[in-house]
Amino acid sequence: MPRRYAFGRADEATHPDSIRATLAEFISTFIFVFAGEGSLLALGKIYRDTGGNSASELVAIALAHALALFAAVSASINVSGGHVNPAVTFGTLLGGRISVVRAIYYWIAQLLGSIVAALLRARHQHVQRPVGFYVSHGVGEWHGLILEIVMTFGLVYTVYATAIDPKRGSLGTIAPLAIGLIVGANVLVGGPFDGASMNPARAFGPALVGWRWDNHWIYWVGPLIGGALAGLIYEYLVIPTEVPHHTHQPLAPEDY
Amino acid sequence: MPRRYAFGRADEATHPDSIRATLAEFISTFIFVFAGEGSLLALGKIYRDTGGNSASELVAIALAHALALFAAVSASINVSGGHVNPAVTFGTLLGGRISVVRAIYYWIAQLLGSIVAALLRARHQHVQRPVGFYVSHGVGEWHGLILEIVMTFGLVYTVYATAIDPKRGSLGTIAPLAIGLIVGANVLVGGPFDGASMNPARAFGPALVGWRWDNHWIYWVGPLIGGALAGLIYEYLVIPTEVPHHTHQPLAPEDY
Amino acid sequence: MPRRYAFGRADEATHPDSIRATLAEFISTFIFVFAGEGSLLALGKIYRDTGGNSASELVAIALAHALALFAAVSASINVSGGHVNPAVTFGTLLGGRISVVRAIYYWIAQLLGSIVAALLRARHQHVQRPVGFYVSHGVGEWHGLILEIVMTFGLVYTVYATAIDPKRGSLGTIAPLAIGLIVGANVLVGGPFDGASMNPARAFGPALVGWRWDNHWIYWVGPLIGGALAGLIYEYLVIPTEVPHHTHQPLAPEDY
Amino acid sequence: MPRRYAFGRADEATHPDSIRATLAEFISTFIFVFAGEGSLLALGKIYRDTGGNSASELVAIALAHALALFAAVSASINVSGGHVNPAVTFGTLLGGRISVVRAIYYWIAQLLGSIVAALLRARHQHVQRPVGFYVSHGVGEWHGLILEIVMTFGLVYTVYATAIDPKRGSLGTIAPLAIGLIVGANVLVGGPFDGASMNPARAFGPALVGWRWDNHWIYWVGPLIGGALAGLIYEYLVIPTEVPHHTHQPLAPEDY
Repeated sequence: MPRRYAFGRADEATHPDSIRATLAEFISTFIFVFAGEGSLLALGKIYRDTGGNSASELVAIALAHALALFAAVSASINVSGGHVNPAVTFGTLLGGRISVVRAIYYWIAQLLGSIVAALLRARHQHVQRPVGFYVSHGVGEWHGLILEIVMTFGLVYTVYATAIDPKRGSLGTIAPLAIGLIVGANVLVGGPFDGASMNPARAFGPALVGWRWDNHWIYWVGPLIGGALAGLIYEYLVIPTEVPHHTHQPLAPEDY
Repeated sequence: MPRRYAFGRADEATHPDSIRATLAEFISTFIFVFAGEGSLLALGKIYRDTGGNSASELVAIALAHALALFAAVSASINVSGGHVNPAVTFGTLLGGRISVVRAIYYWIAQLLGSIVAALLRARHQHVQRPVGFYVSHGVGEWHGLILEIVMTFGLVYTVYATAIDPKRGSLGTIAPLAIGLIVGANVLVGGPFDGASMNPARAFGPALVGWRWDNHWIYWVGPLIGGALAGLIYEYLVIPTEVPHHTHQPLAPEDY
Repeated sequence: MPRRYAFGRADEATHPDSIRATLAEFISTFIFVFAGEGSLLALGKIYRDTGGNSASELVAIALAHALALFAAVSASINVSGGHVNPAVTFGTLLGGRISVVRAIYYWIAQLLGSIVAALLRARHQHVQRPVGFYVSHGVGEWHGLILEIVMTFGLVYTVYATAIDPKRGSLGTIAPLAIGLIVGANVLVGGPFDGASMNPARAFGPALVGWRWDNHWIYWVGPLIGGALAGLIYEYLVIPTEVPHHTHQPLAPEDY
Repeated sequence: MPRRYAFGRADEATHPDSIRATLAEFISTFIFVFAGEGSLLALGKIYRDTGGNSASELVAIALAHALALFAAVSASINVSGGHVNPAVTFGTLLGGRISVVRAIYYWIAQLLGSIVAALLRARHQHVQRPVGFYVSHGVGEWHGLILEIVMTFGLVYTVYATAIDPKRGSLGTIAPLAIGLIVGANVLVGGPFDGASMNPARAFGPALVGWRWDNHWIYWVGPLIGGALAGLIYEYLVIPTEVPHHTHQPLAPEDY
């Protein structure tokens, strides 16, 4: 399956579409992290330390992440592909769906969007540092790593099937919803154990602004492994080979 | 980008489509405010004063706003563009997507819809004045203003990307859902601090009927600034220039 | 606007499509009432008597009604128009969208579906009578009536705009979701006051099986008034006159 | 109606599309069961033993199942038809929509996906055995069986109407959402009584890994009866005969 990397994009770094896509990733990640981190602050405490003993707090946090990510992906999917997540960008890079140049642009935009969201939130709630992510008391760091791998695998697999697969058809219409809601489901599953980030940018901004680095590596390594696995499995095992690569529809990021 | 304001609408004020669109804005804003304000009354107390210590009340209020706004936008998007919010109207006005005449019609209809909803609700729960919006105890007024700006920015940016952008394609199908659910996410984020209005009409009707004007200005200034920023940034930085303006699809309000 | 009633359907009563549509209304109403009434039993108590003091019970009941109605409307919209509600049938009858014969078929099917659901539920939870609907302690019967009128108006207006309006376009795709979720929003609003039925069939089956008739009349009069108002207003004030009636798309019930 | 079984698929067992479809069922069932079983563990206790006295735990579990199933069906509907459930496969087999060979492939993949999810979850939470399904204290086994039959009937009827019916049209776009959310509604209804499985694969993996077999038979017999009823009723009573079988659209599983 040598079709990946078969298309060069020499002018990509300076093309206006690249700039627009990068701006869209920045704004959408800002919207998502502002809501996600903000929902933690809104509940007035760090739910992960309480071991998930309040189911309604868990529901509130899961819904805030799910609904905001749905809107953030909707708002950028036609411009940038709606990644809003370095692990999604990594999975699509390994699958040959975007170029290295564009991936680097996206990563920088995603991290900056998260930092600005965390800063804005922190400046106006000066009594509270951003929360960031870490594994709960009594949960092993390796357990958190496995959780991040598996949950991000499910997320990026869903992204591939609904937003990238050339045979997705009308499924592309609800791709942002499927992407947002699988994150909501996974927050309900992994939240009490490790916060359920599935997204290095989501974890990085609050960690930097709040200067909390405990366990931070698992929120990079886990999602990147999970995203890579999903991208490679979907690209090489699930997508039928008989579909030519140039038939992708306009929702996919490789059209830019 | 001189394409905005390039189209005149001389007969707009008396055209039957303008009347229908104005009626649709009135009814949809009525449905939304009746549900939003009603959910506060249904819970029997003012959740913002309790500082968000009841996560399930916050979830109930966020869902009532999100689901009702989704239906209200669905019910009017093909007739009026589905604004249901003076800040959305302001953002699309600055982006050149509707005329000044139509914007004024919409604003009046939105405010009237909110007032009628608040009146109807108040007459039948005579023990309770409408709640309205204000910042919680211990939260600065400027903090509330910033929150309203940022949250409305996210809302109007989502409106632009899913319902107005000429390249939105099939994304227009789920535009009302994205618009409703980003409001739900933001209520989970901002509710405990300032009520999370993001909509001057949502705040005005209950304020008038309940005669509560404390902090009321931030529910006008914040959303209008946030909506203006989103409209200008999306219109001039994100929408590609090579798409001719007249190719918009029937979901967009400027077709009327 | 004399176009309504302009089309006769002489063979309707015996046409196979009519039988299929009636069967679809029966099954979908069964699914909806089984879930709605079942969620009340699942929570083990009658939430309306507790005055809404448990926000998470209210959320559970609202979600059960919203999600089940969404599925029930989805499962019948292409066969019968997805009414699942005598008030929706009444509104579309007044708007000239279905014939009197078909409306009577639908009403019988909807009531039978509700009765069978209530019976099946009751036989297997012999300790519990079906709950039915009535206004809460301290709430006036007229208040409940007004609530049912206004909430059903919002519901049937949404049905008209998303599933019937010939200009709805791609909005028809998400019509079942908008219809289900406005009911969910209204349960959050009206549930603690009068149970938020908005549907005579939803109320009738449990009332008959549990033999509870207090306040029952408001669950017929309220929804029928609200549905009639919405049907007439949308049909004669919102739908543009220049669209010929025969251009409706296959989702609408009048195509059968 | 002799059209079912009229098409042979001699090369099916070795065709690459069959392999891909089977892989897709495996992965999607894995994602769904990992989230469903994981949400039970995340809440730290077995909610069914508490008789549903915590409404917010019930909401959390219902949402985790609904959102994860929505994503899992989205991620496989274009490849395998998005069954993710042996009862759905059985209903479509009886309706003549898939072949016996393919059904057996799917069943094996679904059971394996569930086992792997339960194993992975159990290995990393070594203090907790998977929960599995059984009827609550005070609930008769026959009551649980009836519940599983009725709830699975509603689920497979929804699958048929939204994802298989050749007249479904644009409804196919939201089929995964309707399928996921009817499961969410039914968990709110049946969860406190028998766990609300509606899916033999969902029940089997955790039962095997946790070695809990009490009442296990009802989670096979109930869903298979309910799925069979729904498939037969929809296929032979609801689908109009005048539509030729070969006009199905690409979302349906029988195209493979």
